[in-house]
Amino acid sequence: MSDSDAIRQPHVVIVGGGFGGMGCARTLGGAPVRVTVVDRNNYNLFSPLLYQVATAALSPADIAQPIRKLLKRQPLTDVMRAQVVGIDYAGKQVLLAGGKMLSYDRLVLACGSSYSYFGHDEWAGEAPAVKTIEDALRIRARLLTAYERAEVSQDPAEQAFLLSTIIVGGGPTGVEMAGAIADLTRFALKKDFRHIRADMAHITLIEAGPRLLAAFPESLAAHARKMLERHAVTVMTGEAVRGIERNSVRVGELTLKAGTLIWAAGVQASPAGRWLGVEVDRAGRLPVGADLSVTGHPDIYAIGDTAAAIGANGKPLPALAQVAKQQGLALGRALRANILQQKPMPAFHFHDRGNTAVISSGAAIYDFRGSHLSGFVGWAFWALIHVYLLTGFRNRILVATQWLWRLATFEPGARLITGTDDPHKPAPSS
Amino acid sequence: MSDSDAIRQPHVVIVGGGFGGMGCARTLGGAPVRVTVVDRNNYNLFSPLLYQVATAALSPADIAQPIRKLLKRQPLTDVMRAQVVGIDYAGKQVLLAGGKMLSYDRLVLACGSSYSYFGHDEWAGEAPAVKTIEDALRIRARLLTAYERAEVSQDPAEQAFLLSTIIVGGGPTGVEMAGAIADLTRFALKKDFRHIRADMAHITLIEAGPRLLAAFPESLAAHARKMLERHAVTVMTGEAVRGIERNSVRVGELTLKAGTLIWAAGVQASPAGRWLGVEVDRAGRLPVGADLSVTGHPDIYAIGDTAAAIGANGKPLPALAQVAKQQGLALGRALRANILQQKPMPAFHFHDRGNTAVISSGAAIYDFRGSHLSGFVGWAFWALIHVYLLTGFRNRILVATQWLWRLATFEPGARLITGTDDPHKPAPSS
Repeated sequence: MSDSDAIRQPHVVIVGGGFGGMGCARTLGGAPVRVTVVDRNNYNLFSPLLYQVATAALSPADIAQPIRKLLKRQPLTDVMRAQVVGIDYAGKQVLLAGGKMLSYDRLVLACGSSYSYFGHDEWAGEAPAVKTIEDALRIRARLLTAYERAEVSQDPAEQAFLLSTIIVGGGPTGVEMAGAIADLTRFALKKDFRHIRADMAHITLIEAGPRLLAAFPESLAAHARKMLERHAVTVMTGEAVRGIERNSVRVGELTLKAGTLIWAAGVQASPAGRWLGVEVDRAGRLPVGADLSVTGHPDIYAIGDTAAAIGANGKPLPALAQVAKQQGLALGRALRANILQQKPMPAFHFHDRGNTAVISSGAAIYDFRGSHLSGFVGWAFWALIHVYLLTGFRNRILVATQWLWRLATFEPGARLITGTDDPHKPAPSS
Repeated sequence: MSDSDAIRQPHVVIVGGGFGGMGCARTLGGAPVRVTVVDRNNYNLFSPLLYQVATAALSPADIAQPIRKLLKRQPLTDVMRAQVVGIDYAGKQVLLAGGKMLSYDRLVLACGSSYSYFGHDEWAGEAPAVKTIEDALRIRARLLTAYERAEVSQDPAEQAFLLSTIIVGGGPTGVEMAGAIADLTRFALKKDFRHIRADMAHITLIEAGPRLLAAFPESLAAHARKMLERHAVTVMTGEAVRGIERNSVRVGELTLKAGTLIWAAGVQASPAGRWLGVEVDRAGRLPVGADLSVTGHPDIYAIGDTAAAIGANGKPLPALAQVAKQQGLALGRALRANILQQKPMPAFHFHDRGNTAVISSGAAIYDFRGSHLSGFVGWAFWALIHVYLLTGFRNRILVATQWLWRLATFEPGARLITGTDDPHKPAPSS
């Protein structure tokens, strides 16, 4: 089949260049199928390591790759940097910001998720989430700026305030942030500063549910909590946040103050449900059939955090990179066989590769069908998996070099304060 | 001498953590002398490679190091992140933004320089300079955003407009930017994009003087021009810019339009002259004696781009990293001997290490007392020198890895569009 035949092939539009979208695009790329990937960013982000950018261990370019570069060997694949604002599903068109439209024959929605502030969007300015590169750089600048201000302060109370951090949400991101900030204060404050010490720094992790890491077995979650507490992290469970203002969080009857607030709770899916007029679940996810097609829309598919695909246990699959990636790869193969050979769309089956969370440099937990790893062996396993999963050989080398360097020297990485246009400055505690 | 004795030693305050300030601080650090380094950024920037951040070859953290980290082994050295707003030289105090003051016994002004828009500060928004990390990321985002817009445009005239770049200033920065953008378009456009090609891209380099690279011998400057022209850069010399508006530059009778404008002309020194009420030269530099003390202020010294130190040929020394670094090291040694052993301050002598500028990946020029290198040998020499001069072993490894990777694959580096708060968007050409 020649390229010109392919022009008459169905056009697959993929919205989102994350784990799911890229998996789908790369599987379709080898076949004579026209594909267009639309993303508002020009890069694919390895979001599981974003907390390391926020805590000055890695640089943005270490965990992001241009989408165009990843797809450059696919002559029939187009990449478009644009913001999707709606879908005309009757006319089979994606509506883009600026009034442009993009026709599709098959549409894949892989738009990911964002943080939900439970209806309090005004909290976002006070407690940034860890979802985008800009978020991560904002948190990095706030943490490091607070340390700098504490260093020149003469007032012990103000120093304690500036050096304290509150993290809302005890899932993997919250736990990883708490551990990484503990690492950062332990090593950076000890080595770089003269007038402040790590024992002045205070980290509080708040979780509304009864325990940390609800998706992990209880024993590993308890181990993670013990490890965090050993690194001087105060863990509060069963406490819902009732309010967030500048540098303060209301929890139960308490008002906690801190120089830096971070949000790691309440995921919500993309606005794809609104675009299609489809009823979504509580997390904003689209209902999909076994073949990942959106209920009532046989030519539209949803994968990753955008979809509520039901797993073998009857529950929706978790919002994990491995789910999105497997769905993307499977959907790509299925669409190729369906378009080129008219094969029916098969049912998707998820293969659990285990679940891992890192607690500090050199300690992680790993759960795989009841087999548990923790401590340094868990960390080494975690590091191996993540270097392997990183897209691109160049980034694998750069990240592995920096991790080994850090393990050998205990030296934090890219701790630059850039982009000083953040109007948020920690207010004094009194 | 114990540390408590040192408290009674004179206090040396160094304003600026660049090549000069850090050279001075590190030399003083080994001695029992109290030192405070004040900088508005928390990092030391290797500015000669900033153009590589702007053209998506390197990441900010590859060419910047936290000042605290560099000085962490000096127990009597303090680092303060603050903005200096004035000097009370009668009271021997540095005035900081926010109303704080810092007393000194000896003051070293190593505040560098910034770009001058010749009284047209309104040009800065249209044509960013290449002086800070934020500048470099802004330029990177504008270049890559223009390519993305050209890729989806259906109009050849609009594509040509978006893919064109105008650089004002034919000194080393302008030449290096022109060459690096030519590299970026050649490799990135060819490999990453489907609908735009490198031969649609147009780069114009405008220099008001009679030739490029006035600080280099005429033969090397002519070679650089020939190399740039071979990479499709249009070089205009003897043409002063008369006006800059959104996406357009007026030169002589012409109005040139381009998707991206970059400023690399007209350096001006820091406001240190104003702080001291001292008359400065045309480039804003402070007059200094042979011992680098500011005329009329025997306890205040100026080094690097802030000072107009007179060289052996009777002319002011050029604004080069090697001048600042040598002055910082020499001043540190002189202050140490003066403070601890009451030795007189010696005269500073500059040792010329040669002058180098890179034209593209794999081609550079190098001038050392009449000996010239160019082409790949010049580039290899340039790369060796720069990796050696980079502060910190970690950054040397990271930068060398990325350069070798690029040389082997012709693959550009960190080409991410981040920080999308830049209100500037290329306007259509018509």
